[in-house]
Amino acid sequence: MNEAKLQRQWMKSNFTEWDDIKSDQEKKLPQPSLQKPYNESDELIDLPEISEKILKKTNILAIIKDRKSHRKHIEESLSLEELSFLLWATQGVKTVSANNYATMRTVPSGGARHPFETYLVINRVKGLKKGVYLYLPLTHQLTFLFHEEDLEGKLTELTLGQSFVGKSAATFIWSCIPYRGEWRYHVSAHKTMLLDAGHLCQNLYLACEAIGCGTCAIGAYDQIAIDKFLRIDGEDEFVVYLAPVGKI
Amino acid sequence: MNEAKLQRQWMKSNFTEWDDIKSDQEKKLPQPSLQKPYNESDELIDLPEISEKILKKTNILAIIKDRKSHRKHIEESLSLEELSFLLWATQGVKTVSANNYATMRTVPSGGARHPFETYLVINRVKGLKKGVYLYLPLTHQLTFLFHEEDLEGKLTELTLGQSFVGKSAATFIWSCIPYRGEWRYHVSAHKTMLLDAGHLCQNLYLACEAIGCGTCAIGAYDQIAIDKFLRIDGEDEFVVYLAPVGKI
Repeated sequence: MNEAKLQRQWMKSNFTEWDDIKSDQEKKLPQPSLQKPYNESDELIDLPEISEKILKKTNILAIIKDRKSHRKHIEESLSLEELSFLLWATQGVKTVSANNYATMRTVPSGGARHPFETYLVINRVKGLKKGVYLYLPLTHQLTFLFHEEDLEGKLTELTLGQSFVGKSAATFIWSCIPYRGEWRYHVSAHKTMLLDAGHLCQNLYLACEAIGCGTCAIGAYDQIAIDKFLRIDGEDEFVVYLAPVGKI
Repeated sequence: MNEAKLQRQWMKSNFTEWDDIKSDQEKKLPQPSLQKPYNESDELIDLPEISEKILKKTNILAIIKDRKSHRKHIEESLSLEELSFLLWATQGVKTVSANNYATMRTVPSGGARHPFETYLVINRVKGLKKGVYLYLPLTHQLTFLFHEEDLEGKLTELTLGQSFVGKSAATFIWSCIPYRGEWRYHVSAHKTMLLDAGHLCQNLYLACEAIGCGTCAIGAYDQIAIDKFLRIDGEDEFVVYLAPVGKI
Protein backbone atom coordinates (compact mmCIF):
# COMPACT_ATOMS: atom_id res chain seq x y z
CA MET A 1 0.00 0.00 0.00
CA ASN A 2 2.99 2.33 0.37
CA GLU A 3 3.15 2.93 -3.37
CA ALA A 4 -0.42 4.16 -3.14
CA LYS A 5 0.21 6.29 -0.06
CA LEU A 6 2.98 8.15 -1.87
CA GLN A 7 0.43 9.34 -4.37
CA ARG A 8 -1.71 11.06 -1.76
CA GLN A 9 0.74 13.92 -1.76
CA TRP A 10 -0.31 15.31 -5.09
CA MET A 11 -3.96 15.45 -4.09
CA LYS A 12 -3.02 18.16 -1.62
CA SER A 13 -2.75 21.91 -2.04
CA ASN A 14 0.80 23.05 -2.75
CA PHE A 15 -0.03 26.72 -3.24
CA THR A 16 1.90 27.66 -0.11
CA GLU A 17 5.08 26.02 -1.35
CA TRP A 18 6.08 28.08 -4.32
CA ASP A 19 6.89 31.49 -2.99
CA ASP A 20 10.19 31.40 -4.85
CA ILE A 21 8.73 30.20 -8.11
CA LYS A 22 7.25 32.54 -10.68
CA SER A 23 4.69 31.23 -13.14
CA ASP A 24 5.08 32.10 -16.80
CA GLN A 25 2.15 34.47 -16.42
CA GLU A 26 4.02 36.29 -13.66
CA LYS A 27 7.06 36.37 -15.93
CA LYS A 28 4.83 38.06 -18.53
CA LEU A 29 5.37 35.30 -21.07
CA PRO A 30 2.71 35.10 -23.80
CA GLN A 31 -0.29 33.02 -22.91
CA PRO A 32 -1.21 29.87 -24.85
CA SER A 33 -4.15 30.00 -27.25
CA LEU A 34 -7.65 29.47 -25.90
CA GLN A 35 -8.40 26.76 -28.43
CA LYS A 36 -6.31 24.29 -30.37
CA PRO A 37 -5.62 25.54 -33.90
CA TYR A 38 -7.22 23.59 -36.74
CA ASN A 39 -6.57 23.47 -40.44
CA GLU A 40 -8.53 26.16 -42.25
CA SER A 41 -9.02 23.69 -45.07
CA ASP A 42 -10.70 21.16 -42.77
CA GLU A 43 -14.38 20.39 -43.01
CA LEU A 44 -16.30 22.51 -40.47
CA ILE A 45 -19.76 21.64 -39.22
CA ASP A 46 -21.96 24.28 -37.59
CA LEU A 47 -23.75 22.95 -34.54
CA PRO A 48 -27.45 23.83 -34.10
CA GLU A 49 -28.46 26.45 -31.56
CA ILE A 50 -29.33 25.17 -28.12
CA SER A 51 -33.06 24.66 -27.88
CA GLU A 52 -35.20 23.71 -24.92
CA LYS A 53 -37.37 21.65 -27.26
CA ILE A 54 -35.04 18.67 -27.07
CA LEU A 55 -35.24 18.39 -23.29
CA LYS A 56 -37.28 15.46 -22.01
CA LYS A 57 -36.75 16.44 -18.40
CA THR A 58 -36.09 20.03 -17.37
CA ASN A 59 -36.32 20.09 -13.57
CA ILE A 60 -32.95 20.27 -11.83
CA LEU A 61 -34.22 18.39 -8.78
CA ALA A 62 -35.52 15.47 -10.83
CA ILE A 63 -32.37 15.45 -12.96
CA ILE A 64 -29.99 15.30 -10.00
CA LYS A 65 -32.17 12.68 -8.34
CA ASP A 66 -32.54 10.44 -11.39
CA ARG A 67 -28.98 10.67 -12.71
CA LYS A 68 -27.05 7.45 -12.59
CA SER A 69 -24.28 5.76 -14.54
CA HIS A 70 -25.46 3.98 -17.67
CA ARG A 71 -23.39 1.29 -19.34
CA LYS A 72 -26.21 0.11 -21.62
CA HIS A 73 -27.63 2.15 -24.45
CA ILE A 74 -30.32 1.48 -27.02
CA GLU A 75 -29.57 1.53 -30.74
CA GLU A 76 -31.27 4.88 -31.41
CA SER A 77 -29.11 7.64 -32.82
CA LEU A 78 -28.57 11.04 -31.24
CA SER A 79 -29.72 14.07 -33.18
CA LEU A 80 -27.28 16.84 -33.98
CA GLU A 81 -29.33 19.13 -31.70
CA GLU A 82 -28.77 16.73 -28.82
CA LEU A 83 -25.05 16.48 -29.46
CA SER A 84 -24.88 20.25 -29.69
CA PHE A 85 -26.54 20.55 -26.28
CA LEU A 86 -24.11 18.09 -24.67
CA LEU A 87 -21.10 19.93 -26.09
CA TRP A 88 -22.47 23.27 -24.96
CA ALA A 89 -23.22 21.96 -21.46
CA THR A 90 -19.72 20.58 -21.03
CA GLN A 91 -17.46 23.14 -22.71
CA GLY A 92 -19.66 25.79 -24.30
CA VAL A 93 -18.27 29.32 -24.36
CA LYS A 94 -20.51 32.05 -22.96
CA THR A 95 -18.17 35.00 -23.33
CA VAL A 96 -14.59 35.73 -24.28
CA SER A 97 -12.92 38.39 -22.19
CA ALA A 98 -11.00 41.37 -23.48
CA ASN A 99 -7.68 40.61 -25.22
CA ASN A 100 -8.65 36.95 -25.45
CA TYR A 101 -7.39 36.47 -21.91
CA ALA A 102 -10.04 33.97 -20.91
CA THR A 103 -13.25 32.23 -21.87
CA MET A 104 -16.24 32.06 -19.56
CA ARG A 105 -17.90 28.72 -20.09
CA THR A 106 -20.82 26.63 -18.90
CA VAL A 107 -18.43 25.03 -16.38
CA PRO A 108 -15.95 26.62 -14.00
CA SER A 109 -12.20 26.20 -14.42
CA GLY A 110 -9.49 27.33 -12.01
CA GLY A 111 -8.28 30.76 -13.13
CA ALA A 112 -10.61 30.40 -16.16
CA ARG A 113 -7.85 28.51 -17.95
CA HIS A 114 -10.08 25.82 -19.51
CA PRO A 115 -7.23 23.50 -20.44
CA PHE A 116 -9.30 20.89 -22.29
CA GLU A 117 -10.08 19.91 -25.85
CA THR A 118 -13.07 17.71 -26.65
CA TYR A 119 -12.69 14.90 -29.17
CA LEU A 120 -15.71 12.89 -30.25
CA VAL A 121 -15.82 9.42 -31.67
CA ILE A 122 -19.09 9.49 -33.57
CA ASN A 123 -20.89 6.25 -34.17
CA ARG A 124 -24.63 7.07 -34.35
CA VAL A 125 -25.42 10.77 -34.70
CA LYS A 126 -27.89 11.83 -37.40
CA GLY A 127 -26.24 13.96 -40.04
CA LEU A 128 -22.66 13.05 -39.12
CA LYS A 129 -20.61 10.35 -40.79
CA LYS A 130 -18.77 7.98 -38.49
CA GLY A 131 -15.35 9.11 -37.40
CA VAL A 132 -13.36 11.26 -35.03
CA TYR A 133 -14.14 14.95 -34.62
CA LEU A 134 -12.81 17.89 -32.63
CA TYR A 135 -15.13 20.41 -30.96
CA LEU A 136 -14.36 24.08 -31.60
CA PRO A 137 -15.89 25.84 -28.59
CA LEU A 138 -15.15 29.40 -29.73
CA THR A 139 -17.47 29.03 -32.72
CA HIS A 140 -19.56 26.07 -31.50
CA GLN A 141 -18.55 23.95 -34.47
CA LEU A 142 -17.12 20.54 -35.13
CA THR A 143 -14.23 19.73 -37.37
CA PHE A 144 -13.87 16.25 -38.86
CA LEU A 145 -10.47 14.74 -38.16
CA PHE A 146 -10.33 11.16 -39.44
CA HIS A 147 -12.00 7.82 -39.77
CA GLU A 148 -10.52 4.41 -39.09
CA GLU A 149 -11.71 0.88 -39.66
CA ASP A 150 -13.42 -0.78 -36.69
CA LEU A 151 -13.70 2.21 -34.38
CA GLU A 152 -15.88 0.09 -32.11
CA GLY A 153 -13.19 -2.52 -31.58
CA LYS A 154 -10.54 0.14 -31.18
CA LEU A 155 -12.48 2.05 -28.49
CA THR A 156 -13.08 -1.17 -26.58
CA GLU A 157 -9.37 -1.95 -26.73
CA LEU A 158 -8.37 1.59 -25.71
CA THR A 159 -10.60 1.34 -22.64
CA LEU A 160 -9.12 -2.01 -21.59
CA GLY A 161 -11.98 -4.16 -22.79
CA GLN A 162 -14.96 -2.05 -21.77
CA SER A 163 -17.08 -2.99 -24.77
CA PHE A 164 -19.97 -0.65 -23.94
CA VAL A 165 -17.71 2.24 -24.87
CA GLY A 166 -17.26 0.98 -28.42
CA LYS A 167 -21.00 0.45 -28.82
CA SER A 168 -22.02 3.95 -27.68
CA ALA A 169 -23.54 6.53 -30.04
CA ALA A 170 -20.84 9.11 -29.31
CA THR A 171 -17.81 8.99 -27.05
CA PHE A 172 -16.50 12.20 -25.53
CA ILE A 173 -12.72 12.11 -25.05
CA TRP A 174 -11.26 15.06 -23.18
CA SER A 175 -7.61 15.86 -23.64
CA CYS A 176 -5.67 18.31 -21.54
CA ILE A 177 -3.22 20.91 -22.85
CA PRO A 178 -1.39 21.26 -19.53
CA TYR A 179 0.55 24.41 -20.37
CA ARG A 180 -2.72 26.37 -20.34
CA GLY A 181 -2.91 25.71 -16.61
CA GLU A 182 0.83 25.72 -15.92
CA TRP A 183 1.21 29.15 -17.52
CA ARG A 184 -0.80 30.57 -14.63
CA TYR A 185 -0.45 28.07 -11.78
CA HIS A 186 2.88 26.35 -12.42
CA VAL A 187 3.19 23.30 -10.14
CA SER A 188 -0.27 23.90 -8.70
CA ALA A 189 -1.99 23.58 -12.06
CA HIS A 190 -2.32 19.82 -12.24
CA LYS A 191 -4.61 19.12 -9.33
CA THR A 192 -6.76 22.06 -10.43
CA MET A 193 -7.06 20.66 -13.94
CA LEU A 194 -8.25 17.27 -12.70
CA LEU A 195 -10.89 18.94 -10.54
CA ASP A 196 -11.94 20.90 -13.62
CA ALA A 197 -12.30 17.71 -15.65
CA GLY A 198 -14.67 16.48 -12.97
CA HIS A 199 -16.74 19.68 -13.24
CA LEU A 200 -17.34 19.28 -16.94
CA CYS A 201 -18.05 15.58 -16.74
CA GLN A 202 -20.72 16.17 -14.11
CA ASN A 203 -22.46 18.54 -16.49
CA LEU A 204 -22.36 15.79 -19.12
CA TYR A 205 -24.11 13.41 -16.73
CA LEU A 206 -26.85 15.94 -15.98
CA ALA A 207 -27.26 17.07 -19.57
CA CYS A 208 -27.59 13.43 -20.65
CA GLU A 209 -30.27 12.85 -18.03
CA ALA A 210 -32.17 15.83 -19.41
CA ILE A 211 -32.38 14.42 -22.96
CA GLY A 212 -32.94 10.71 -22.33
CA CYS A 213 -29.30 9.76 -22.73
CA GLY A 214 -26.91 8.06 -20.36
CA THR A 215 -23.19 8.04 -19.75
CA CYS A 216 -20.62 6.43 -17.49
CA ALA A 217 -17.31 8.22 -17.22
CA ILE A 218 -14.16 6.19 -17.83
CA GLY A 219 -10.84 6.71 -16.05
CA ALA A 220 -9.33 3.33 -16.91
CA TYR A 221 -7.81 3.50 -20.39
CA ASP A 222 -4.55 2.85 -22.18
CA GLN A 223 -2.86 6.24 -22.02
CA ILE A 224 -0.19 5.74 -24.66
CA ALA A 225 -2.51 4.03 -27.11
CA ILE A 226 -5.33 6.54 -26.81
CA ASP A 227 -3.03 9.53 -27.28
CA LYS A 228 -1.58 7.84 -30.35
CA PHE A 229 -5.09 7.09 -31.63
CA LEU A 230 -5.96 10.82 -31.41
CA ARG A 231 -2.62 11.82 -32.99
CA ILE A 232 -1.68 13.89 -29.94
CA ASP A 233 1.80 13.79 -28.47
CA GLY A 234 1.04 12.55 -24.95
CA GLU A 235 3.18 15.28 -23.43
CA ASP A 236 1.91 18.73 -24.37
CA GLU A 237 -1.51 17.25 -24.92
CA PHE A 238 -2.87 14.00 -23.51
CA VAL A 239 -6.19 12.37 -22.69
CA VAL A 240 -7.49 12.77 -19.14
CA TYR A 241 -11.04 11.43 -19.13
CA LEU A 242 -13.68 9.97 -21.39
CA ALA A 243 -17.40 9.31 -21.43
CA PRO A 244 -19.44 7.24 -23.87
CA VAL A 245 -22.98 8.52 -24.47
CA GLY A 246 -26.06 6.83 -25.86
CA LYS A 247 -29.84 6.82 -25.68
CA ILE A 248 -31.35 4.88 -22.80
CA MET B 1 8.81 24.86 -16.11
CA ASN B 2 10.34 21.39 -15.75
CA GLU B 3 9.08 21.07 -12.20
CA ALA B 4 5.61 21.61 -13.56
CA LYS B 5 6.08 19.19 -16.46
CA LEU B 6 7.00 16.41 -14.08
CA GLN B 7 3.58 16.71 -12.53
CA ARG B 8 1.78 16.00 -15.78
CA GLN B 9 2.52 12.33 -15.28
CA TRP B 10 0.01 11.81 -12.53
CA MET B 11 -2.81 13.30 -14.55
CA LYS B 12 -2.54 10.29 -16.83
CA SER B 13 -4.16 6.86 -16.63
CA ASN B 14 -1.91 4.28 -14.99
CA PHE B 15 -4.45 1.47 -15.04
CA THR B 16 -2.32 -0.49 -17.52
CA GLU B 17 0.73 -0.39 -15.27
CA TRP B 18 -0.26 -2.44 -12.27
CA ASP B 19 -0.73 -5.96 -13.57
CA ASP B 20 1.51 -7.25 -10.80
CA ILE B 21 -0.13 -5.26 -8.03
CA LYS B 22 -3.21 -6.48 -6.22
CA SER B 23 -5.50 -3.97 -4.54
CA ASP B 24 -6.64 -4.64 -0.99
CA GLN B 25 -10.06 -5.42 -2.40
CA GLU B 26 -8.51 -8.10 -4.62
CA LYS B 27 -6.66 -9.41 -1.57
CA LYS B 28 -10.08 -9.69 0.13
CA LEU B 29 -9.13 -7.30 2.90
CA PRO B 30 -12.07 -5.69 4.72
CA GLN B 31 -13.38 -2.53 3.16
CA PRO B 32 -13.27 0.82 4.96
CA SER B 33 -16.51 2.21 6.37
CA LEU B 34 -18.80 4.21 4.08
CA GLN B 35 -18.93 7.13 6.47
CA LYS B 36 -16.61 8.50 9.12
CA PRO B 37 -17.66 7.34 12.60
CA TYR B 38 -18.95 10.01 14.97
CA ASN B 39 -19.43 10.09 18.71
CA GLU B 40 -22.85 8.74 19.65
CA SER B 41 -22.97 11.36 22.36
CA ASP B 42 -22.53 14.20 19.85
CA GLU B 43 -25.34 16.57 19.05
CA LEU B 44 -27.17 15.41 15.89
CA ILE B 45 -29.29 17.67 13.75
CA ASP B 46 -31.87 16.22 11.34
CA LEU B 47 -31.86 17.99 8.01
CA PRO B 48 -35.21 18.88 6.42
CA GLU B 49 -36.51 16.82 3.52
CA ILE B 50 -35.63 18.09 0.07
CA SER B 51 -38.46 20.23 -1.23
CA GLU B 52 -38.94 21.84 -4.60
CA LYS B 53 -40.51 24.82 -2.86
CA ILE B 54 -37.15 26.39 -2.12
CA LEU B 55 -36.06 26.46 -5.78
CA LYS B 56 -36.05 29.88 -7.38
CA LYS B 57 -34.98 28.50 -10.74
CA THR B 58 -35.76 24.95 -11.78
CA ASN B 59 -34.86 24.73 -15.47
CA ILE B 60 -31.60 22.91 -16.15
CA LEU B 61 -30.89 24.92 -19.29
CA ALA B 62 -31.24 28.25 -17.50
CA ILE B 63 -29.24 26.98 -14.54
CA ILE B 64 -26.29 25.80 -16.65
CA LYS B 65 -26.42 29.00 -18.69
CA ASP B 66 -26.60 31.38 -15.72
CA ARG B 67 -24.14 29.64 -13.41
CA LYS B 68 -21.00 31.60 -12.72
CA SER B 69 -18.48 31.96 -9.92
CA HIS B 70 -19.57 34.32 -7.16
CA ARG B 71 -17.10 35.88 -4.76
CA LYS B 72 -19.61 38.38 -3.34
CA HIS B 73 -22.57 37.44 -1.22
CA ILE B 74 -25.27 39.46 0.49
CA GLU B 75 -25.76 39.35 4.26
CA GLU B 76 -28.92 37.21 4.14
CA SER B 77 -28.81 33.87 5.93
CA LEU B 78 -29.44 30.50 4.32
CA SER B 79 -32.37 28.48 5.60
CA LEU B 80 -31.84 24.97 6.88
CA GLU B 81 -33.93 23.71 3.93
CA GLU B 82 -31.51 25.37 1.53
CA LEU B 83 -28.46 23.93 3.26
CA SER B 84 -30.13 20.53 3.25
CA PHE B 85 -30.64 20.78 -0.51
CA LEU B 86 -27.00 21.73 -1.13
CA LEU B 87 -25.75 18.82 0.97
CA TRP B 88 -28.09 16.41 -0.75
CA ALA B 89 -27.08 17.65 -4.21
CA THR B 90 -23.38 17.24 -3.49
CA GLN B 91 -23.16 14.05 -1.42
CA GLY B 92 -26.70 12.84 -0.74
CA VAL B 93 -27.15 9.07 -0.53
CA LYS B 94 -29.88 7.59 -2.72
CA THR B 95 -29.38 3.92 -1.90
CA VAL B 96 -26.99 1.71 0.01
CA SER B 97 -26.18 -1.58 -1.68
CA ALA B 98 -26.34 -5.00 -0.09
CA ASN B 99 -23.72 -5.71 2.60
CA ASN B 100 -22.93 -2.00 2.82
CA TYR B 101 -20.60 -2.43 -0.15
CA ALA B 102 -21.38 0.93 -1.72
CA THR B 103 -23.56 4.02 -1.63
CA MET B 104 -25.30 5.37 -4.69
CA ARG B 105 -25.32 9.12 -4.44
CA THR B 106 -26.44 12.22 -6.29
CA VAL B 107 -22.97 12.37 -7.85
CA PRO B 108 -20.92 9.63 -9.50
CA SER B 109 -17.70 8.31 -7.96
CA GLY B 110 -15.25 5.88 -9.54
CA GLY B 111 -16.13 2.38 -8.35
CA ALA B 112 -18.82 3.99 -6.15
CA ARG B 113 -16.16 4.55 -3.48
CA HIS B 114 -17.26 8.07 -2.45
CA PRO B 115 -14.08 8.88 -0.56
CA PHE B 116 -15.17 12.28 0.79
CA GLU B 117 -16.43 13.76 4.01
CA THR B 118 -18.17 17.14 4.06
CA TYR B 119 -17.31 19.64 6.78
CA LEU B 120 -19.23 22.88 7.06
CA VAL B 121 -18.15 26.12 8.62
CA ILE B 122 -21.49 27.69 9.48
CA ASN B 123 -21.69 31.45 9.74
CA ARG B 124 -25.23 32.44 8.74
CA VAL B 125 -27.71 29.55 8.57
CA LYS B 126 -31.06 29.94 10.31
CA GLY B 127 -31.45 27.51 13.18
CA LEU B 128 -27.76 26.61 13.42
CA LYS B 129 -25.31 28.17 15.82
CA LYS B 130 -21.98 29.26 14.35
CA GLY B 131 -19.31 26.59 14.25
CA VAL B 132 -17.93 23.61 12.41
CA TYR B 133 -20.16 20.66 11.53
CA LEU B 134 -19.80 17.31 9.81
CA TYR B 135 -22.40 16.03 7.35
CA LEU B 136 -23.63 12.46 7.91
CA PRO B 137 -24.82 11.39 4.46
CA LEU B 138 -26.17 7.99 5.50
CA THR B 139 -28.85 9.58 7.69
CA HIS B 140 -28.86 13.09 6.12
CA GLN B 141 -27.93 14.72 9.41
CA LEU B 142 -25.36 17.13 10.71
CA THR B 143 -23.24 16.69 13.77
CA PHE B 144 -21.80 19.70 15.56
CA LEU B 145 -18.02 19.45 16.00
CA PHE B 146 -16.65 22.63 17.53
CA HIS B 147 -16.61 26.39 17.60
CA GLU B 148 -13.61 28.69 17.64
CA GLU B 149 -13.16 32.40 18.08
CA ASP B 150 -12.94 34.45 14.87
CA LEU B 151 -13.87 31.74 12.38
CA GLU B 152 -14.03 34.45 9.72
CA GLY B 153 -10.43 35.46 10.20
CA LYS B 154 -9.33 31.86 10.41
CA LEU B 155 -11.03 30.88 7.13
CA THR B 156 -9.48 33.84 5.38
CA GLU B 157 -6.05 32.86 6.67
CA LEU B 158 -6.55 29.19 5.74
CA THR B 159 -7.39 30.21 2.18
CA LEU B 160 -4.30 32.41 1.87
CA GLY B 161 -6.06 35.71 2.33
CA GLN B 162 -9.23 35.15 0.30
CA SER B 163 -11.45 37.17 2.60
CA PHE B 164 -14.72 36.38 0.80
CA VAL B 165 -14.42 32.84 2.13
CA GLY B 166 -14.52 34.02 5.73
CA LYS B 167 -17.53 36.23 5.04
CA SER B 168 -19.65 33.50 3.40
CA ALA B 169 -22.80 32.10 5.01
CA ALA B 170 -21.52 28.52 4.92
CA THR B 171 -18.26 27.06 3.67
CA PHE B 172 -18.17 23.51 2.37
CA ILE B 173 -14.83 21.82 3.05
CA TRP B 174 -14.40 18.39 1.49
CA SER B 175 -11.84 16.05 2.94
CA CYS B 176 -10.72 12.82 1.33
CA ILE B 177 -10.25 9.52 3.12
CA PRO B 178 -7.89 8.11 0.49
CA TYR B 179 -7.97 4.50 1.60
CA ARG B 180 -11.60 4.25 0.47
CA GLY B 181 -10.35 4.66 -3.08
CA GLU B 182 -7.01 2.88 -2.64
CA TRP B 183 -8.75 -0.21 -1.25
CA ARG B 184 -10.22 -0.76 -4.70
CA TYR B 185 -7.93 1.09 -7.14
CA HIS B 186 -4.55 1.13 -5.41
CA VAL B 187 -2.22 3.52 -7.27
CA SER B 188 -4.96 4.46 -9.70
CA ALA B 189 -7.25 5.78 -6.98
CA HIS B 190 -5.86 9.28 -6.63
CA LYS B 191 -6.58 10.72 -10.04
CA THR B 192 -10.06 9.19 -9.84
CA MET B 193 -10.72 10.84 -6.48
CA LEU B 194 -9.79 14.30 -7.77
CA LEU B 195 -12.13 13.86 -10.74
CA ASP B 196 -14.82 12.83 -8.25
CA ALA B 197 -14.26 15.97 -6.17
CA GLY B 198 -14.88 17.95 -9.35
CA HIS B 199 -18.16 16.09 -9.94
CA LEU B 200 -19.59 17.00 -6.56
CA CYS B 201 -18.42 20.58 -6.70
CA GLN B 202 -20.15 21.09 -10.04
CA ASN B 203 -23.41 19.97 -8.46
CA LEU B 204 -22.84 22.55 -5.73
CA TYR B 205 -22.50 25.28 -8.35
CA LEU B 206 -25.73 24.24 -10.06
CA ALA B 207 -27.67 23.69 -6.85
CA CYS B 208 -26.58 27.16 -5.65
CA GLU B 209 -27.78 28.70 -8.89
CA ALA B 210 -31.17 27.03 -8.36
CA ILE B 211 -31.74 28.64 -4.94
CA GLY B 212 -30.33 32.13 -5.43
CA CYS B 213 -26.96 31.34 -3.91
CA GLY B 214 -23.47 31.57 -5.34
CA THR B 215 -20.16 29.83 -4.81
CA CYS B 216 -16.59 29.93 -6.07
CA ALA B 217 -14.56 26.80 -5.47
CA ILE B 218 -11.17 27.19 -3.81
CA GLY B 219 -8.11 25.08 -4.57
CA ALA B 220 -5.55 27.45 -3.04
CA TYR B 221 -5.38 26.84 0.70
CA ASP B 222 -2.86 26.07 3.43
CA GLN B 223 -2.97 22.26 3.54
CA ILE B 224 -1.28 21.68 6.86
CA ALA B 225 -3.17 24.44 8.64
CA ILE B 226 -6.60 23.49 7.32
CA ASP B 227 -6.17 19.82 8.25
CA LYS B 228 -5.10 20.89 11.71
CA PHE B 229 -8.08 23.25 11.94
CA LEU B 230 -10.45 20.34 11.21
CA ARG B 231 -8.58 18.06 13.61
CA ILE B 232 -7.84 15.55 10.85
CA ASP B 233 -4.45 13.92 10.48
CA GLY B 234 -3.46 15.11 6.99
CA GLU B 235 -2.46 11.60 6.01
CA ASP B 236 -5.41 9.20 6.25
CA GLU B 237 -7.76 12.12 5.87
CA PHE B 238 -6.98 15.52 4.36
CA VAL B 239 -8.79 18.42 2.72
CA VAL B 240 -8.99 18.39 -1.08
CA TYR B 241 -11.36 21.21 -2.05
CA LEU B 242 -13.57 23.88 -0.56
CA ALA B 243 -16.39 26.18 -1.58
CA PRO B 244 -17.87 29.14 0.28
CA VAL B 245 -21.61 29.66 -0.28
CA GLY B 246 -23.83 32.67 0.25
CA LYS B 247 -26.93 34.40 -1.03
CA ILE B 248 -26.44 36.60 -4.09
